[in-house]
Amino acid sequence: MRSFAIGVDLGGTNLRIAAVEDGGRLLHSLSTATELALGRDFVIQEMSDAIRDLAREFGSTHKLAGIGVGVPGIIDLATGTVHSATNLPGWSNYPVRGELESRLGVPVLLENDANCAALGEKWLGAGRGVEDLCMITLGTGVGGGVVIDGKPWHGLIGMAGEIGHMTVFPDGNPCVCGNYGCLEQYASATAIRRMALKAIENGQATGLARCLESDPAFSSHAVFQCAVSGDATAKEIFAKAGRALGIALGNLINALNFPLYVVGGGVSRAWEAFSPALFAELRKRSIVFRAGEAAKQKSTMVVPAQLAGDAGLVGAARLPMIAKTSWNFCSLAV
Amino acid sequence: MRSFAIGVDLGGTNLRIAAVEDGGRLLHSLSTATELALGRDFVIQEMSDAIRDLAREFGSTHKLAGIGVGVPGIIDLATGTVHSATNLPGWSNYPVRGELESRLGVPVLLENDANCAALGEKWLGAGRGVEDLCMITLGTGVGGGVVIDGKPWHGLIGMAGEIGHMTVFPDGNPCVCGNYGCLEQYASATAIRRMALKAIENGQATGLARCLESDPAFSSHAVFQCAVSGDATAKEIFAKAGRALGIALGNLINALNFPLYVVGGGVSRAWEAFSPALFAELRKRSIVFRAGEAAKQKSTMVVPAQLAGDAGLVGAARLPMIAKTSWNFCSLAV
Repeated sequence: MRSFAIGVDLGGTNLRIAAVEDGGRLLHSLSTATELALGRDFVIQEMSDAIRDLAREFGSTHKLAGIGVGVPGIIDLATGTVHSATNLPGWSNYPVRGELESRLGVPVLLENDANCAALGEKWLGAGRGVEDLCMITLGTGVGGGVVIDGKPWHGLIGMAGEIGHMTVFPDGNPCVCGNYGCLEQYASATAIRRMALKAIENGQATGLARCLESDPAFSSHAVFQCAVSGDATAKEIFAKAGRALGIALGNLINALNFPLYVVGGGVSRAWEAFSPALFAELRKRSIVFRAGEAAKQKSTMVVPAQLAGDAGLVGAARLPMIAKTSWNFCSLAV
Repeated sequence: MRSFAIGVDLGGTNLRIAAVEDGGRLLHSLSTATELALGRDFVIQEMSDAIRDLAREFGSTHKLAGIGVGVPGIIDLATGTVHSATNLPGWSNYPVRGELESRLGVPVLLENDANCAALGEKWLGAGRGVEDLCMITLGTGVGGGVVIDGKPWHGLIGMAGEIGHMTVFPDGNPCVCGNYGCLEQYASATAIRRMALKAIENGQATGLARCLESDPAFSSHAVFQCAVSGDATAKEIFAKAGRALGIALGNLINALNFPLYVVGGGVSRAWEAFSPALFAELRKRSIVFRAGEAAKQKSTMVVPAQLAGDAGLVGAARLPMIAKTSWNFCSLAV
């Protein structure tokens, strides 16, 4: 009998739940809006109902390996509470794990969503075949997840992977975290947009200004499209993002010499616009990256993510499969 | 019967060899000049003779767990050769491990000296009680060693721990590695001396100039003594080193959230001169460091090394004790 696990990706906008077979096949997935306005208990109840439905649906043909839940923000792994989560207002110190376990009557594994995404890419995406990787997620902010020896790396207080707040330009832009010149200030969707708006404001960017006029939403993707169509200012903005990524990645490669660094999140779709500057910076700055390239077969790889929005979901489902203690709960499925 | 291991610290200046008991007690150590001028074979023969003597001396009362050798430079762990070692001219691609094994008739473990130092501090120094740490060694250059789960972390091509070549000031001083603004350019003994000489040249530093006149060797330690006696320029030079260390450490703490970072090497004796700037920078730059301080019991520690020059030696002896395969060779002792 094959086994399966249930993964949950609890986002600020969407709540996604999936049953995933042990070999990686997606058996079933569902997505619903995260009804934050209806309160935490409502969301948790909806989540546990969906988990129960999936457990029932596949429980007769498969053995349930467990349940994994990815949550944005900082998690206290010891207590299963969400410490602080910008995208889940009002959830601070809420015992997500305990609330789910008391409804389901079985253990639940909680994990930071960035670590889930890194684990998902390691299992079924760009990271198949390596045991150690770092994933950088370029979204509204810049997040990160670290996988060492096939497992999420938490660090002392569960905050490992704050790649977005690595300093790349010490005298650079102020960051919400209190620092100056964080990677997030140059390589996030927010930063791309900010740099574009600033260039327009300075009157340097007539192409971008026209784009803003025709598309008031003016996302980082619009800036990317300007870059693709040859706009010099838009190209320089992505080159700046690439250089910032190159500095951060060069530091990580020098320190850890992992075999793989995966770049995901919405902005990673602009790979062609920022990756040339990224690799130029890496070659200039990282003695370890250059040594890897010289060793040919042993080159450190920096690649775009492969699973797009599914990485966190399948990574959450992977959690119980790699947990030390395995367990079995037919009771849930009945 | 207790066991012991033999550790070797093969430096460009000194060759040190020690027998260390499994509990960490130093049974015997010896030090001799590394006679590089007499050739690699001479040095290897001297090393193997000393290893054999120590094995014989303690082999009747102790079980020999193995032999570990720390070598400066980049090691190909698969083949046991020294790839490149600035401080061992002429040793590139020399099969250190094979040469030792053929003389001794038993397996030998080879390791980068910075990793040995990190392992030594983990075993008997500042890192007792933690399983994961990063050690930064401030010497002529800036080296680094990473220990994860109690074992040296090598990375894809054995080059993990190149902390000295992390970028801290992207437009900073050019570095021998080809990059600009590497940590090594601000926190090594060489950098301290360079910054002091430059200040004198610029006519800004009459105190330092007097010191240079009375002490033509003018080491980084002389600059430290000026700082201690209140010289503002010397103090600012160490503050600059502290800020550079704070940026690099902040990045490492944000990425990995290890419980401990150990600062060793000769310049670490100037701890009082650079550590205030280091911690100020850390608090400003690292969201993870600040969160650890807020969590009180879970604060990330940054501390000076405890074993001084012995860290690499005892770390080398530790290698066979933590190796997966244990073995026994009475034959060597007879």
